[in-house]
Amino acid sequence: MPINNKIRDKESLSIVKIGGNIVDHPEALKSFLSDFHRLEGRKLLVHGGGVMASKMAVRLGIETRMVQGRRITDAETLKLVTMVYAGWINKNMVASLQKIGCNALGLSGADGNTIPALRRSPVPVDYGFVGDPDPEKVNAELISKLIEGKITPVFCAITHDGKGSLLNTNADTVAYSLAAAMSRKYDTTLYYCFEKEGVLKDVSDPESLIPSINREESEAYKLQGIIAGGMIPKIDNSFHAIEQGVSEVIILHAKNLLSKKGTVLRESNRTSKKE
Amino acid sequence: MPINNKIRDKESLSIVKIGGNIVDHPEALKSFLSDFHRLEGRKLLVHGGGVMASKMAVRLGIETRMVQGRRITDAETLKLVTMVYAGWINKNMVASLQKIGCNALGLSGADGNTIPALRRSPVPVDYGFVGDPDPEKVNAELISKLIEGKITPVFCAITHDGKGSLLNTNADTVAYSLAAAMSRKYDTTLYYCFEKEGVLKDVSDPESLIPSINREESEAYKLQGIIAGGMIPKIDNSFHAIEQGVSEVIILHAKNLLSKKGTVLRESNRTSKKE
Repeated sequence: MPINNKIRDKESLSIVKIGGNIVDHPEALKSFLSDFHRLEGRKLLVHGGGVMASKMAVRLGIETRMVQGRRITDAETLKLVTMVYAGWINKNMVASLQKIGCNALGLSGADGNTIPALRRSPVPVDYGFVGDPDPEKVNAELISKLIEGKITPVFCAITHDGKGSLLNTNADTVAYSLAAAMSRKYDTTLYYCFEKEGVLKDVSDPESLIPSINREESEAYKLQGIIAGGMIPKIDNSFHAIEQGVSEVIILHAKNLLSKKGTVLRESNRTSKKE
Repeated sequence: MPINNKIRDKESLSIVKIGGNIVDHPEALKSFLSDFHRLEGRKLLVHGGGVMASKMAVRLGIETRMVQGRRITDAETLKLVTMVYAGWINKNMVASLQKIGCNALGLSGADGNTIPALRRSPVPVDYGFVGDPDPEKVNAELISKLIEGKITPVFCAITHDGKGSLLNTNADTVAYSLAAAMSRKYDTTLYYCFEKEGVLKDVSDPESLIPSINREESEAYKLQGIIAGGMIPKIDNSFHAIEQGVSEVIILHAKNLLSKKGTVLRESNRTSKKE
């Protein structure tokens, strides 16, 4: 496991994850995609889409069942999320990026075997067709070839098990897995963009942004309930990413992608990139 | 326009189009994908999916309206076909091919700007979000790079206008456009696979297969009503493809892909590849 693998002569790569709440708002999404296009250097995008999947589930009469913030994915739900994430959202995002001059190419983890995943054990909770990628098995070579060929990959959060089955996968986890894998070749920064300013001391007060958090502090914030709910896996993924060699993880509002204002995750104060 | 561009020192490329009726039958599809994987040499796949789109339209309460065999594509229908073609069908096909060792990668025409298209004029029939690709604008360079990198592209019949809008496109036309564009670099054969033996003198008798047709014969068969309905655009696309430099077009049953038994389209008897 490469720890603190911040070799300065690597080319830099930005991996940007955009959450489903932004994806569901056309104006916010348009503005975000324009900023993403303006982000300099090599980059790739990972998108969620849970909000739109839940709306489509209602139209199709498919019951949405969540356990610990994760969607239970039976065969019908797998069809639904594949249609919405890999079909509607992914292709629209690609078409929108093409419009503004970004040569985007949409991918699921099945495409080019970019993200093989392991179906999650049915114990203790049977999530159904849900998988977790192994960063060691990400096809970094193909992704890197695309990027070096001036293509901007756009990933949806659908992976596959290599046995013919697609798997629903948490988009934060897809972004973390890609970042971990790509950090072997690139000086990689992972951006988690969503509809909050970052990690907030008071979730209702955008001014209460915590500018940086190291691992020890994150544990204390969890105990205090400041890091709670959906923020817990995001933070855990972030520190996993840093452990695996990702240079920096920033949790931020989608509108702040270019200013990079948000919460910076750091292994510890000593190993921070900024120091 | 290169005519009869059958340069023997080009590498060969098979472009295989599989129709929606086969796609809708899991066992037939499985068998077809296995044959496709066994097809030697460079290749790419184009798939339809109209049958599944019509079924999903019923579930979503979207009215299916067809004019001259073509789907009228309003905004709701565009969403539907993008979900079904680019999402569910395309990603499942890719996962199935990955399972059997074929390194497939699914694409719409928006991805990597592979197939830019022009939205069809609303006169005389307003088909809505429907487009026709221009073979001159197909991104043959990117597709070729993927193929040379041992990737098998799998195209759905969704393209884009470069102005941010996806477009529903006839899958036969997508296959023809790709074949025409790729024939500049490769000795290209186009296979139209569907659920009939080929062009039949008597549509109810598989034994009545017409083994080869040249352009003059095709016009006579149209007058006789032997080439009718959905076969007309398939035949027209085939001769357009040959005009543009495609070496051979074969219309055949999906089960006969490896034996290549079907109807061979030829510019004329004199220019046939087999002679």
